[in-house]
Amino acid sequence: MRATPWPRVTKSGRLQVALGEFELIRRYFARPVVSRQDVSLGIGDDCALLLVPAGYELAASIDTLVAGVHFAPGVRPRDLGYKVLAVNLSDLAAMGAEPAWATLALTLPGADEEWLAEFAAGLFQLAERHGVQLVGGDTTRGPLSVTVQIHGFVPAGQALRRSGARAGDRVYVSGELGAAALALRRRQAAADDCAAAIIARLDRPQPRILEGRALRGIATAAIDVSDGLAADLGHILEASGLGATIHLEDLPMCQAVAAQVATDGDWSLPLGGGEDYELCFTVPPDREAELLETWRRFDCGCRCIGICEDMPGLRYALGADGLYVTAEPGYQHFADPA
Amino acid sequence: MRATPWPRVTKSGRLQVALGEFELIRRYFARPVVSRQDVSLGIGDDCALLLVPAGYELAASIDTLVAGVHFAPGVRPRDLGYKVLAVNLSDLAAMGAEPAWATLALTLPGADEEWLAEFAAGLFQLAERHGVQLVGGDTTRGPLSVTVQIHGFVPAGQALRRSGARAGDRVYVSGELGAAALALRRRQAAADDCAAAIIARLDRPQPRILEGRALRGIATAAIDVSDGLAADLGHILEASGLGATIHLEDLPMCQAVAAQVATDGDWSLPLGGGEDYELCFTVPPDREAELLETWRRFDCGCRCIGICEDMPGLRYALGADGLYVTAEPGYQHFADPA
Repeated sequence: MRATPWPRVTKSGRLQVALGEFELIRRYFARPVVSRQDVSLGIGDDCALLLVPAGYELAASIDTLVAGVHFAPGVRPRDLGYKVLAVNLSDLAAMGAEPAWATLALTLPGADEEWLAEFAAGLFQLAERHGVQLVGGDTTRGPLSVTVQIHGFVPAGQALRRSGARAGDRVYVSGELGAAALALRRRQAAADDCAAAIIARLDRPQPRILEGRALRGIATAAIDVSDGLAADLGHILEASGLGATIHLEDLPMCQAVAAQVATDGDWSLPLGGGEDYELCFTVPPDREAELLETWRRFDCGCRCIGICEDMPGLRYALGADGLYVTAEPGYQHFADPA
Repeated sequence: MRATPWPRVTKSGRLQVALGEFELIRRYFARPVVSRQDVSLGIGDDCALLLVPAGYELAASIDTLVAGVHFAPGVRPRDLGYKVLAVNLSDLAAMGAEPAWATLALTLPGADEEWLAEFAAGLFQLAERHGVQLVGGDTTRGPLSVTVQIHGFVPAGQALRRSGARAGDRVYVSGELGAAALALRRRQAAADDCAAAIIARLDRPQPRILEGRALRGIATAAIDVSDGLAADLGHILEASGLGATIHLEDLPMCQAVAAQVATDGDWSLPLGGGEDYELCFTVPPDREAELLETWRRFDCGCRCIGICEDMPGLRYALGADGLYVTAEPGYQHFADPA
């Protein structure tokens, strides 16, 4: 659907149709960067036509990034294009699904060709890396926001759900926590002292696609850490009817995040810092050896940070003293901030 | 992904998580109004898990409606909820696909529960009518806009594409044209003299799902009239490498639209008025009898309005005088308005 400057038949007898720039934008994204065999029909008709292989379930997720909320209006468009696909791919990773197709709903104040070229470059760079074909979209005029719907496959019955964790399962996390939040905190303070590697964790998160697929058959539950470890692990625990104890000293952190935590004694970067897009997952004790053997081929580490327990709530242990803080039993979704 | 007021461990030792209203919104839409057997996992995990039946292709489309562009900020939320799904269903109809699942990306300035209840009621009313299950979504804070991604099925190889028309095929259109544009024109003029039936054509378009499915095996090409007949038929002609002549006196119009055309001699309402969400399709002459027989069971009419020709361009004939106006040969997508 299009914002409609109605076509009119003019006195000269010519039918005038003012599509112009937005039609051009659509064509911009129609470049076949990735061409998949399972796409019967891509961009350019009322719908895309897609083939899901027999024996597989379709995994689908949608995410929106809004200017001024999820990113600064002055964000580099290449980073935005990358990130909007990355956050969607991360949802597939958390299900153990293999990426396939994306659609893009782009709302723009106007058509800035340079901006679009950069945005598309960032998007297509990541799409190519993961073999994702852009199969459809909608371009509208309005306040800047970007929505991507991602589609992937997972062998029927093998998806990693949030609800499969059991008491005694070990809680694992991939990579490191808190760097994206640290980068955002520094950026919001207009500080330019942040190392490039830290900034990259915010602007260029690596969706853990290969890692998620490898967890099929090993992990009992998984989620991606988009809202912060405590919140996202909380979703697993709630869905599985469990609680957990997390050992704070086992939280994987880069040096900069660890230094920040040591300085102010505030664990909110690794516990509450969102946008890490790491995987948090649960593994039965008898599968840990297989996990660690499997994980050896990946670039990022994985670390056991705690254990699932029958008692509801999320507890934190620090050092030999045992319990440090205790979150609300049952995990409070609706609490107001202090 | 969520706009993140970072969770923090406070001095009192409680982990504070400010999710609040937007988590509530998400739960609002998680009500199971329609529960489909082919949904393995709906709202509430990182992805939905969906089953496409064997022998079918997945049809997918995404559309965004932006406040102040596609609808007035003061739109009735119930109408908005209805319409955002209707415009997506119309894309499925144009492919001859059967609706199955939708995801919703809702960007809102804030959580107004009354507004949400009305929006959801409009959305779910239409979803229920067409057996569509809402399987996922994302709720974000920002300027009001609504994006729906729709999914449906079509037997492999039987989808109605834009590219299948052949010279000699008859051009048909369902229902009537121009009423939605008339309603919008009157609304923009702040006139309250518009009949309810006309207003309904703008606010409550009927996606021609059953009609689209019936066209499989009969029509050679189809599109939904979202941007106006001339523009949308132009897409069929361009994709099929054809031109066409349209007989203006055969354009199906309600009395109010016909009166407007007669008054000012301007055919832009039926030719260029968008948002009718009727189907425009092409039918070989030897299938016309079957079409008309098949169509008898539908509420809306269908009318032959012209013929496909080898010569590029869209031509209009009026009465016995023959040619009336001739649009640019080849159909000009990028022309500026006069």
